[in-house]
Amino acid sequence: SSADSQTPAKVQQLCVYEINERDRGSPAYLRLSQKSVNSLGDLVPFSNKIYTGDLQKRVGITAGLCILIQNVPEKKGDRYEATFSFHFGDYGHICVQGQYLTYEDTYLAVTGGSGIFEGVYGQVKLQQLIFPFKLFYTFYLKGIPDLPEELLGAAVAPSPAVEPTAAAKACEAGATILNYTQ
Amino acid sequence: SSADSQTPAKVQQLCVYEINERDRGSPAYLRLSQKSVNSLGDLVPFSNKIYTGDLQKRVGITAGLCILIQNVPEKKGDRYEATFSFHFGDYGHICVQGQYLTYEDTYLAVTGGSGIFEGVYGQVKLQQLIFPFKLFYTFYLKGIPDLPEELLGAAVAPSPAVEPTAAAKACEAGATILNYTQ
Amino acid sequence: SSADSQTPAKVQQLCVYEINERDRGSPAYLRLSQKSVNSLGDLVPFSNKIYTGDLQKRVGITAGLCILIQNVPEKKGDRYEATFSFHFGDYGHICVQGQYLTYEDTYLAVTGGSGIFEGVYGQVKLQQLIFPFKLFYTFYLKGIPDLPEELLGAAVAPSPAVEPTAAAKACEAGATILNYTQ
Repeated sequence: SSADSQTPAKVQQLCVYEINERDRGSPAYLRLSQKSVNSLGDLVPFSNKIYTGDLQKRVGITAGLCILIQNVPEKKGDRYEATFSFHFGDYGHICVQGQYLTYEDTYLAVTGGSGIFEGVYGQVKLQQLIFPFKLFYTFYLKGIPDLPEELLGAAVAPSPAVEPTAAAKACEAGATILNYTQ
Repeated sequence: SSADSQTPAKVQQLCVYEINERDRGSPAYLRLSQKSVNSLGDLVPFSNKIYTGDLQKRVGITAGLCILIQNVPEKKGDRYEATFSFHFGDYGHICVQGQYLTYEDTYLAVTGGSGIFEGVYGQVKLQQLIFPFKLFYTFYLKGIPDLPEELLGAAVAPSPAVEPTAAAKACEAGATILNYTQ
Repeated sequence: SSADSQTPAKVQQLCVYEINERDRGSPAYLRLSQKSVNSLGDLVPFSNKIYTGDLQKRVGITAGLCILIQNVPEKKGDRYEATFSFHFGDYGHICVQGQYLTYEDTYLAVTGGSGIFEGVYGQVKLQQLIFPFKLFYTFYLKGIPDLPEELLGAAVAPSPAVEPTAAAKACEAGATILNYTQ
């Protein structure tokens, strides 16, 4: 790793959009605290779609759990602890863990991966565009071979208005990665 | 890591069986979605026994959580996101995260470990033999010293019929690792 | 990593106290097993305060989930599987996973981190001082640059009686790290 050797590890940047198209029954807000305000005890399993940063291709899904830690009234939002994965079809997956704040950007840890992401480490910046339906992620990845070109198209600048291409939304041939995760 | 240096990291293969002997109250299927078909919102804590790949020794337990992501009717199965650990008694433990599909093999990420597995990374292949009672895992591990011989016996070829030895099932002296996790 | 190269990775030791001051609604014991004795199926989201090992500064919070695996009557305690993070304000966070036994010390895996902990791996020793209100952790961290001095003050020897300074408890100026996690 970078601290052990003379040469710092190479960092690869990877951008994806996570979009909730309201067709997966997600998120499932489990109000297990039985309180009227969001409180510790509430759990939120979720799974949304992911697209390449250039919005040209459907990649797969996110899947995991948000744990409500704290309602933050002065920010009009919530603090969650999130553990989830990004599934990239035949390419494999990336695991992450860290804080998700509904009112500001955060960095999560990249804890591992499979396939082309086997051995990955680093962190990922989470930017929320429309709560909780549209998010933009910038991964800073180390420990893996060069990523495939189709994942590295120039990212569309993040804004609430961005949308995947119609072909990508429809998962048309040529507008998905190989065996994208459904 | 492998991508940073000239010499690829050494990969050690480790096989274990995970067997649900129906004596641990596992799995606990929590139908929190309150739907009749398995749906996002359902959570499944679980803990099963693990044996060495040669089925000669009881090693310990698995422990963790499966998050129901999606029922997949065309496959007659389910997609879960799983976060769990394999506990190897005094040897320590291995953490994993990734998809568990009840209808096909998958690879999960190895996200860390303790004891002899401190600093581990890599991935693990999950093969289901009898849903959800018997599974075979092949770990591909990097970043750790040579594994102890008693974990590396030649694996019995995975099939639904395999069983641990009677001595291992009974946790007899010589048929467990040291202070196996109960 | 240490096993791949000639020179072992440098280990940095970091001590923190985790204290439940009963003002965060934590832990939230969710008796989803619906059994009278703690059983698989019960889930325990939690979030406590963390202080530097010298008890001079408030650092942030823990946040995550304990999964009840097994009641262990002969030890008069419980086995949990825990996945959680330690949040260190502007410094970032550390992710851990492993067993939490209410009746003895354990080692958990460090699975990743952000900020100054980006790329971290290793393990952490968990020592319980007063169940479930006061715990002492010793991290053994690899893969990261030298930690800041303010986190490395000589740790107060762990005992049930230890308390943070009044200034740290009150989060006074100079008695917190920068933008400590609330």
